[in-house]
Amino acid sequence: MKFGGTSMAGTERIRRVANIVRKQAANGDQVAVVVSAMAGETDRLVNFCREANPLYDPAEYDVVVASGEQVTSGLLALTLQALGCKARSWLGWQLPVHTVEAHAKARIEDIDSDALLASMAAGEIAVIPGFQGIGGDGRVTTLGRGGSDTSAVAVAAAIGADRCDIYTDVDGVYTTDPRIVAKARKQKAVTYEEMLELASVGAKVLQTRSVGLAMKEGVRVQVLSSFTGDDAVPADELPGTMIVSEEEMEQILEDGHMERQHVTGIAHDKNEAKIILTRVPDKPGAVANIFSPLADASINVDMIIQNVGRDKGETDVTFTVPQTDLPRAQALLEDRREDIGFNRIITDSHVAKVSVVGVGMKSHAGVASTMFKSLADRGINIQAISTSEIKVSVMIDEDETELAVRVLHTAYGLDAD
Amino acid sequence: MKFGGTSMAGTERIRRVANIVRKQAANGDQVAVVVSAMAGETDRLVNFCREANPLYDPAEYDVVVASGEQVTSGLLALTLQALGCKARSWLGWQLPVHTVEAHAKARIEDIDSDALLASMAAGEIAVIPGFQGIGGDGRVTTLGRGGSDTSAVAVAAAIGADRCDIYTDVDGVYTTDPRIVAKARKQKAVTYEEMLELASVGAKVLQTRSVGLAMKEGVRVQVLSSFTGDDAVPADELPGTMIVSEEEMEQILEDGHMERQHVTGIAHDKNEAKIILTRVPDKPGAVANIFSPLADASINVDMIIQNVGRDKGETDVTFTVPQTDLPRAQALLEDRREDIGFNRIITDSHVAKVSVVGVGMKSHAGVASTMFKSLADRGINIQAISTSEIKVSVMIDEDETELAVRVLHTAYGLDAD
Repeated sequence: MKFGGTSMAGTERIRRVANIVRKQAANGDQVAVVVSAMAGETDRLVNFCREANPLYDPAEYDVVVASGEQVTSGLLALTLQALGCKARSWLGWQLPVHTVEAHAKARIEDIDSDALLASMAAGEIAVIPGFQGIGGDGRVTTLGRGGSDTSAVAVAAAIGADRCDIYTDVDGVYTTDPRIVAKARKQKAVTYEEMLELASVGAKVLQTRSVGLAMKEGVRVQVLSSFTGDDAVPADELPGTMIVSEEEMEQILEDGHMERQHVTGIAHDKNEAKIILTRVPDKPGAVANIFSPLADASINVDMIIQNVGRDKGETDVTFTVPQTDLPRAQALLEDRREDIGFNRIITDSHVAKVSVVGVGMKSHAGVASTMFKSLADRGINIQAISTSEIKVSVMIDEDETELAVRVLHTAYGLDAD
Repeated sequence: MKFGGTSMAGTERIRRVANIVRKQAANGDQVAVVVSAMAGETDRLVNFCREANPLYDPAEYDVVVASGEQVTSGLLALTLQALGCKARSWLGWQLPVHTVEAHAKARIEDIDSDALLASMAAGEIAVIPGFQGIGGDGRVTTLGRGGSDTSAVAVAAAIGADRCDIYTDVDGVYTTDPRIVAKARKQKAVTYEEMLELASVGAKVLQTRSVGLAMKEGVRVQVLSSFTGDDAVPADELPGTMIVSEEEMEQILEDGHMERQHVTGIAHDKNEAKIILTRVPDKPGAVANIFSPLADASINVDMIIQNVGRDKGETDVTFTVPQTDLPRAQALLEDRREDIGFNRIITDSHVAKVSVVGVGMKSHAGVASTMFKSLADRGINIQAISTSEIKVSVMIDEDETELAVRVLHTAYGLDAD
């Protein structure tokens, strides 16, 4: 079970979490709980580090920020004990959670689970601070912001858990953002691949890394809400959304627990920016001249299209980057104006990406054409297109995002009755 | 070097601390720094624990409260790096600081200093969170409130430090509380024994345990202020008060660095309460019946006097306990009224203990009689007396505390010119 910062914000909320955990344990289950720091605490600690040293040493940064989860893990253990449960905390260095690579953005390599399993078998609820581990240097490491989801999946994998229940402030994965489409439906299940596409295009329910790890390790993940009150349906009855392998999804569909759909969800992302380079020489190597330096600078380029230019031998190149990287990308391209040989840079942050996602589209043609036609019927102009095996994305004007999402939700038959 | 919570309260103050440390290191010294949590932080964390579980598990309490010093140690290392120093933090479990006995009131048994000494020899300033260690169970322990002074002395002993400089919000040990006596003088040096008596009777400059440890390990301690500004005298020039062995004190006196005094200081303590049990049977075992149950309940009885009772074969027994233990002591005695056989319990929190302290009184008669005469001359009534080799204490009415301290300060020739 994993609880995020909003669920852990203060002793009252921790008591609510403890009640949920107690019920699960009372069910006869062996339970390990991974917790985030209290909401706002990590920001407070990061600010201390910035004030102390703007160019902070990641190893010391880790010492400071890992304390937030240390506090909540101790407090949850105490609260569980107050409810009559046996419980104890296991800090990252105690299990230990071995990590590799850099401080402040470590990756979990291995978790020693022997002591943990013995303690759980003896009836103790294990409470584990998320986000932290121990490096090869014997020092505290952290996984980067949002790393607690990944910790939870890694612990679940290490102990061979039947399920990893991730409690969030939403009660599952929807067909699209319910704030935009009132008729959005909660999904019973989605595949890892679908969740990855939905997460990476803006359905921010789980950290992308955690989904990737769950897929790699075959950990069955359930997303559900910690705010549905003490008398909520037990997590065993799967009130949230299960994130599973394609094989398990096939079984769920065969057993008739869910309807077969071509499209699972509609995602949108307003955090992209468009860059157009005009009059780029239309010759071999020209495109590499643009994208190699961006890749070297770790700027993620998403959609790319080449327009036919006004003059022969020249083309316009359009692509998208994350909005936060736009100034850096622009400066980098200006520096290489001569190498690349473009005429003008035109940028536009006023764009959005809307995507339809579904493993079902692998075996079903016509998903993309339904998308283009539905949008065209409503006069929404498509500025760029990108596709993967289970996703079609289009770039449109930002003002038309909500309209496009509603149109597509209806077009693919996702509206609730 | 050790810095307390007031010195570490916020990144601005930590920067001031870092500057003091940097100067010491720039002096060519190898430096280890022990830090407390930010002022108020430990209280905040303790309150979380109480809210989570009023009967909290000390092992989990330790996990929560140890985080306060973890944060400040990381932040001081970062701040030192920002000033161009090499620095790193060493958490209690990393050194490790081995502790024994119970969680939440652990005692340092041993500190592995090899890695620490190697790091310091390589020019790194070591920053160590006070108050914390690791128990035989491999879990985080804390030393009990105020334990950072003890951590500092233990680290100094482990690395064979030339000196342990404890920076506080006072600039040394005075002949008495300067808020009461304007003519109080800062001492150049006091002995461990004197400091123990001064601390335990209310001159709250250092934690008593830390002084006891310094005496046992022969660590030379200097008490000085972290609030005298960046251009303060370097700590090497001993601007504070040195706490040393009697042998070193003899040397200091012989070298003429200090005047020989019979009385080193006047301490006072308003946190005692008086209990009178009337008409206790004057027979063998009666007194044991009173004090054994108090000792079993860890209630510290200080002064004891027996008055002649009104009737033959009966006496009144008067003694003092810490004010905070008064309700518990009273309840305990009421429970044993029949066993003990007293008539009434009379309690009085409106008392104070005033003590004169000095190793010089070992070899000089008349210190006690000067005390009694000076107080009698001003009409101050002595309700009880207790003495040790280097201390004479009297219990008086609380309202007369300040007057008594001033009278005695003058009587023993301690007033500054």
